Amino acid sequence: MSQDKLFKRYEIDGSEKVKLTKLPKDSKEDGVEKEEILAAYDENMKKLGELQERLYADGKEGLIIVLQAIDAAGKDSTIKHVMGGFNPQGVKVYSFKGPNTEELAHDYLWRMNKCLPKRGEISIWNRSHYEDVVAVEMHDLWDKYAMAARAIGTDKDEFIKKRCKQIRNYEEYLYENSYRVVKIFLNVSKKEQKKRFLERIERPEKNWKFSVSDMEDRAHFEEYVDVYEKTLNRTATKTAPWYALPADQKWYTRYLVSEILVHVLEDCDPQFPEVSAEQKLALQECKARLEAE
Amino acid sequence: MSQDKLFKRYEIDGSEKVKLTKLPKDSKEDGVEKEEILAAYDENMKKLGELQERLYADGKEGLIIVLQAIDAAGKDSTIKHVMGGFNPQGVKVYSFKGPNTEELAHDYLWRMNKCLPKRGEISIWNRSHYEDVVAVEMHDLWDKYAMAARAIGTDKDEFIKKRCKQIRNYEEYLYENSYRVVKIFLNVSKKEQKKRFLERIERPEKNWKFSVSDMEDRAHFEEYVDVYEKTLNRTATKTAPWYALPADQKWYTRYLVSEILVHVLEDCDPQFPEVSAEQKLALQECKARLEAE
Repeated sequence: MSQDKLFKRYEIDGSEKVKLTKLPKDSKEDGVEKEEILAAYDENMKKLGELQERLYADGKEGLIIVLQAIDAAGKDSTIKHVMGGFNPQGVKVYSFKGPNTEELAHDYLWRMNKCLPKRGEISIWNRSHYEDVVAVEMHDLWDKYAMAARAIGTDKDEFIKKRCKQIRNYEEYLYENSYRVVKIFLNVSKKEQKKRFLERIERPEKNWKFSVSDMEDRAHFEEYVDVYEKTLNRTATKTAPWYALPADQKWYTRYLVSEILVHVLEDCDPQFPEVSAEQKLALQECKARLEAE
Repeated sequence: MSQDKLFKRYEIDGSEKVKLTKLPKDSKEDGVEKEEILAAYDENMKKLGELQERLYADGKEGLIIVLQAIDAAGKDSTIKHVMGGFNPQGVKVYSFKGPNTEELAHDYLWRMNKCLPKRGEISIWNRSHYEDVVAVEMHDLWDKYAMAARAIGTDKDEFIKKRCKQIRNYEEYLYENSYRVVKIFLNVSKKEQKKRFLERIERPEKNWKFSVSDMEDRAHFEEYVDVYEKTLNRTATKTAPWYALPADQKWYTRYLVSEILVHVLEDCDPQFPEVSAEQKLALQECKARLEAE
């Protein structure tokens, strides 16, 4: 088994259209052993900690991790586990709900821009500006904005397409300004969602994660998949690719996420800042003074 | 004299390259009478107050006024006078100096995004993201950023051109999301700058506005004009045009700015929100209750 490039199968970079329904929801087709995967995941967690320390010290690239999914696909638990590999000092998690009044009074990227990391740091976006495409399309919100007629237009699909173009430009701008945007879609099956919903209903400590309205969204499961598929294809680029990861087995999802993050951070190749000869001399002087105390 | 369209002469919308040195620095060529201009300016101030109230009530478009210029061209006094027509409740002025450490740790538009108006409001940017082009070009700062090598590249002009493309995309995005971006360059002559510098030196209450380093910039006056000309031509678009206004006579500059703002706000055509029949009935009931008190 060559684990190295397993995640590549799930990468969408805009070079060809991808069908979400045809992509695996679990590890079966990848012919992996769970134990090996768990061991590789542990390795990755260690690597991530080291890479993050370098990223922070170097301060040259900022990492943005976008997480999108249908309900119960495992966004929260992915964040909880994979992020365990990071030092919280350089990482911030932002969860986005429906926009509030002040956010709606601005352009839709305004609230995202407030959550950009410094270079050297990592922002995790639990939902993101992609809600401004997917939710807007699903709930026909495009013509409900308090905006000028010219900014709304007369055609829903034109509106959505224009928004996807804006997002491509935005993420290209971020890449060109020394950010990495990693976009992860957790591709869960309807069957697995049912199982997880039932668990949320049956286990009292999980009740708070379930709402009756989740059933309504479930009734539109296939439509959500269609809209996500369209959105992913429209916004996937070489510099800000999507990863539509199998999400029916959490251990496999987590492994793939860790693998992607290791890959991206290794590509950043962050270095501890070099200390000049002059600084090194000063360090030696400080050492001598400390020892003489 | 048709005052209506005087400002059109100074509009740069990207359809043709403009030479800043060939554009007038004063009103002479426009054949205007100062008294008529002052009267028209007063009219515009009244119109601006009314239009702003509508803009605020309507809440559908946000206005961003960008002011850029060479030293002593009159940015501060333009803001002081023209903005006197507005109700300060819906207007905020932001002055941008060299970026601080936190700003430098983010993309260069990060600090601009924090200063975007709500729709219905107005932001005035006293200097702006255009410093990240002009100052960066003048002072060779492009390769001093703490960014990945890929984000810096190896060629200054390529770096600056890419940044101008990013800015065009950014302003297009703002326009498409119901903002208006009005960009004003105050085109002052070197002779007038000398006069204003001398005034700042000779009048004690103006001393604080002058710094010895201003003389250094003055030594590069022609180079600044060249860099501005290149930048204006690269970033002027139909939806976010530049206006390179004659700045040797403050009364004329102010008039032209007021004229442009009236033009833009009239084009926004803001309306007081309509009250529904139901709401009208409720208002009448409230009236009756108040009168019965």
